Amino acid sequence: MCDREIVNSSWSSEMPSVLIAHLSQYQSSQAVQVRGWVEAVRDQKNIQFVIIRDESGAPLQLLYVRSGKSDCIAEKISSLSIGSFVRASGVLKHNERVKLRGLEVEINNLDVVSTALPSPIAHDSSIDKRLDWRFLDLRNERNNLIFRIQTYFLHALRTWWVRNGFIEINTPKLMASSSESRAELFSLKYFDRIGYLAQSPQFFKQMSQAAGFGKVFEIAPVYRADPSFTSRHATEYTSIDSELSWIESHEDVMNMQEELLTYSICDVLERHSEEIRGVFGLNLCPPKRPFVRVTLEQALNISARSGHISQRHDLDPEAERRVGKWALDNHASDFVFVTNYPVSVRPFYHMRENENITKSYDLLFRGIEIATGAQREHRYDVLVDQAREKGLDLSELGYYLDFFRYGMPPHGGFGAGLARIIMALLRLGSIKESTFLFRGPNRLLP
Amino acid sequence: MCDREIVNSSWSSEMPSVLIAHLSQYQSSQAVQVRGWVEAVRDQKNIQFVIIRDESGAPLQLLYVRSGKSDCIAEKISSLSIGSFVRASGVLKHNERVKLRGLEVEINNLDVVSTALPSPIAHDSSIDKRLDWRFLDLRNERNNLIFRIQTYFLHALRTWWVRNGFIEINTPKLMASSSESRAELFSLKYFDRIGYLAQSPQFFKQMSQAAGFGKVFEIAPVYRADPSFTSRHATEYTSIDSELSWIESHEDVMNMQEELLTYSICDVLERHSEEIRGVFGLNLCPPKRPFVRVTLEQALNISARSGHISQRHDLDPEAERRVGKWALDNHASDFVFVTNYPVSVRPFYHMRENENITKSYDLLFRGIEIATGAQREHRYDVLVDQAREKGLDLSELGYYLDFFRYGMPPHGGFGAGLARIIMALLRLGSIKESTFLFRGPNRLLP
Repeated sequence: MCDREIVNSSWSSEMPSVLIAHLSQYQSSQAVQVRGWVEAVRDQKNIQFVIIRDESGAPLQLLYVRSGKSDCIAEKISSLSIGSFVRASGVLKHNERVKLRGLEVEINNLDVVSTALPSPIAHDSSIDKRLDWRFLDLRNERNNLIFRIQTYFLHALRTWWVRNGFIEINTPKLMASSSESRAELFSLKYFDRIGYLAQSPQFFKQMSQAAGFGKVFEIAPVYRADPSFTSRHATEYTSIDSELSWIESHEDVMNMQEELLTYSICDVLERHSEEIRGVFGLNLCPPKRPFVRVTLEQALNISARSGHISQRHDLDPEAERRVGKWALDNHASDFVFVTNYPVSVRPFYHMRENENITKSYDLLFRGIEIATGAQREHRYDVLVDQAREKGLDLSELGYYLDFFRYGMPPHGGFGAGLARIIMALLRLGSIKESTFLFRGPNRLLP
Repeated sequence: MCDREIVNSSWSSEMPSVLIAHLSQYQSSQAVQVRGWVEAVRDQKNIQFVIIRDESGAPLQLLYVRSGKSDCIAEKISSLSIGSFVRASGVLKHNERVKLRGLEVEINNLDVVSTALPSPIAHDSSIDKRLDWRFLDLRNERNNLIFRIQTYFLHALRTWWVRNGFIEINTPKLMASSSESRAELFSLKYFDRIGYLAQSPQFFKQMSQAAGFGKVFEIAPVYRADPSFTSRHATEYTSIDSELSWIESHEDVMNMQEELLTYSICDVLERHSEEIRGVFGLNLCPPKRPFVRVTLEQALNISARSGHISQRHDLDPEAERRVGKWALDNHASDFVFVTNYPVSVRPFYHMRENENITKSYDLLFRGIEIATGAQREHRYDVLVDQAREKGLDLSELGYYLDFFRYGMPPHGGFGAGLARIIMALLRLGSIKESTFLFRGPNRLLP
């Protein structure tokens, strides 16, 4: 019925090109065309070498044997600037003496399709300088790999959700009220009124529960007008959200998230573990299940026993690191669920176990908080009481509270930060490294 | 290595429940638990009927035989309000006389987990009234199906891209300048400066090309402060974007989009064509390839010959409808690529075929414009000239123009509207029907 076969096709009408990472599958002496940007030129008397790299992340040595005095290819190579994009055709050679994967292409043609100015950044430039020139920074093999890994991770998440019957929702980021707290809220003029940027899809995920959608997910941007400068905060970030009906408690959400993350990390490892070893020097293992589970009180004690008293009612970043280290040392686990958060540090919509404790959790991955989940309060009267107790403006929340007056199943879910997960997975120093284009208080460009 | 098997599992610790759509796979007399919301109650003397529906979109008849005077289940049923969420357990019966799929459950227990107020909307309420109460409107079988179809469609798009080596990017929606035109732009206070909401990921898709990402995609919200009230405009919508390097012309982008859409629509049909027939009365067929291709001039003539002169330099909505009808009548095709758009109606970054014509296209699906694509101008000097010619402020564009100064491969891509595609596919009257929560000039709630 359908012509649906997937081929790694070129839609281009020109001579098919080969990705550099795929070249080793071709035989010596085969004619090939390759394309990429110039990383280095060695311009010798009789022979010229050009190192290029392409979207597959791999580098390739091009070799040109000078032919005489008016040799226009040799002239092009002599004047090649680093960073320029070129298209080259020639003959593939498997050659053990070539350091770059034992391959080179002896070229008979070279087109310079775009000439580059000298790069303003170097390998050791500061992260801020690199972010100023992010489009050049991303050409780095390591950065290219981060986003290829992220692509597979995201696809694995969605594949797991879709196969398990979750519905994808695209909730609006333009809202008439705040969804979390009045602090850290971006506002804008929305025609004749004020609108706000969503701090999370929380209210609309819950709306989908009243709508009878059952199990939902969304991966989309959220916004926090957070003036802090840390390795883990951004004003705009990609939030991974899921919500499901008919849970018994937050434990069901934890189980779902554990299964989802394990599946997705395993998928990444199956495809990329060799590259991760080569580029990041990391030998990653599948997550050990079940994830370790401790109460907040236990976690605070673990941190205190190791010599650090958390500066907050919940875990500060140093306490998170110590709990992560404890889980690794004692349970060989990268993941820790921390439960039993007090009402005081949780939003009004978290369901309560008793008057002090919520039915919620945080998830730490290698000592970094990557997610918060909870059972939500679905009983209208209780929810209104909890909102009032937190001092919220009920008139502004009216549309949200309506979701609970026409039938609402018990439900819960989680929100997780994509950039934090990738940062923890690949042991990067900052979410700036795992964000395509970071946004912070003083960074709105490029 | 990995425990990755996917089961349609319940993460709940309670007795496993069955989705109503899956009930027919169970045998008569089997004990089952079902959950959903109440759609109707028939309270007879000896017997009570409750119709419920769940997230799978299917309805189910529950049957209860009254047992005596102090029968608390009967009392619960008598006082059940429509829309309430219930959990029921009992015995499945295959019964040909039951209209609802020949199935009913004779229940022995019923929990009312959430009681509903009377619904403020009815089946025939206006679209505006229904949007006011969107969370109730979405319980409708038809609306539920729209979003289950959309879930598969989106997953198919991404599956095709991932298998073909595209990288997923999450571009920021907070920008320091406009990405399309100064008109229809939302601005906000971004700490000590002014920021804007992205009208498209255009500039950052192009940044990914300078970054050597090769082939990329993104599905994410974009924003237009568009004051118009039509069936196809929204202030926030989900944009489907892709961009790829090393194209020869916009024809390569068209071929890629054609293959992508065909794959994805076929995937939807394989999974949902029976439900689409049942609920929408539509017999959908796989797209006929190749899609019809006409120039804008030909398209305007087709419309004129059918009696409508377009009111614009390109196709107005009525002209689009007529070209769509012509393609269906003459080529049995739902899709038409319209090419050769003049420079005057295209943005500065479209590459030009000659001084009058751009290398760009629009794609019509059943007479509705769903996408615009083009080869982009990648030559810095030409791009600057074209920006200047369009009267743009070059100082504000500086960061964007930088992308082209350090090496940029030839490239192109497209942007498409998700809600328009789903609207055209299912022949809905408005994108309000295919958007989870519509945003328009006077609609910021719920």
